[in-house]
Amino acid sequence: MSDHPDTPVAPVPAFEPPYYAAVFTSVKTGAQDGYGETSARMEELVKDVPGFLGMDHAQTPGGLGITVGYFRDADALTEWRTDAEHRAAQRRGRAEWYESYTVHVAKVERSHDFTRE
Amino acid sequence: MSDHPDTPVAPVPAFEPPYYAAVFTSVKTGAQDGYGETSARMEELVKDVPGFLGMDHAQTPGGLGITVGYFRDADALTEWRTDAEHRAAQRRGRAEWYESYTVHVAKVERSHDFTRE
Repeated sequence: MSDHPDTPVAPVPAFEPPYYAAVFTSVKTGAQDGYGETSARMEELVKDVPGFLGMDHAQTPGGLGITVGYFRDADALTEWRTDAEHRAAQRRGRAEWYESYTVHVAKVERSHDFTRE
Repeated sequence: MSDHPDTPVAPVPAFEPPYYAAVFTSVKTGAQDGYGETSARMEELVKDVPGFLGMDHAQTPGGLGITVGYFRDADALTEWRTDAEHRAAQRRGRAEWYESYTVHVAKVERSHDFTRE
């Protein structure tokens, strides 16, 4: 839910499974008033969730956005999903910012990463 | 692994759980010779995997790319992971195209989607 303008460009690394990934794929409307501020606020807020591991975001200009949040366990995800401020942001997203979106909540069974030497 | 130039802009919808999501997050090098052709070929090839459900892709210009492939079951994912042409593409990716990447393979436990009326 963010454009992450100051995030260093590197994918979140692999963690020791099991952990959770919440995949949020979306296409925005033309009505983006307040989106940037809310997105930045959510990005700060999620860091306070115990068990939050990290977040990846990519945005094709004029196209699809994908945000993947990583969480240590189901409790961490529940805390984030039920956060009152987050729920208010989700409601505003449906009302104004998103043309369509999909959420996939998944338990990671294996993972690996690669970094060029 | 694709820029999906002619994909209609809509997220892949939610499927009935359980299913699998393979999340591939990457940052590219400056050496992209052959990437476009291979990416287009992989995009075609994966469609032939029985149990392949769909794929989302987003690419921040100069930044992170995220591809999420959806598969009905672990067998479908195994078939794709062990495909000889796909493995050759992965090797070339590590040798030339990717600065860094992470793969998270996860079993989707719940999902939902939203489309504006």
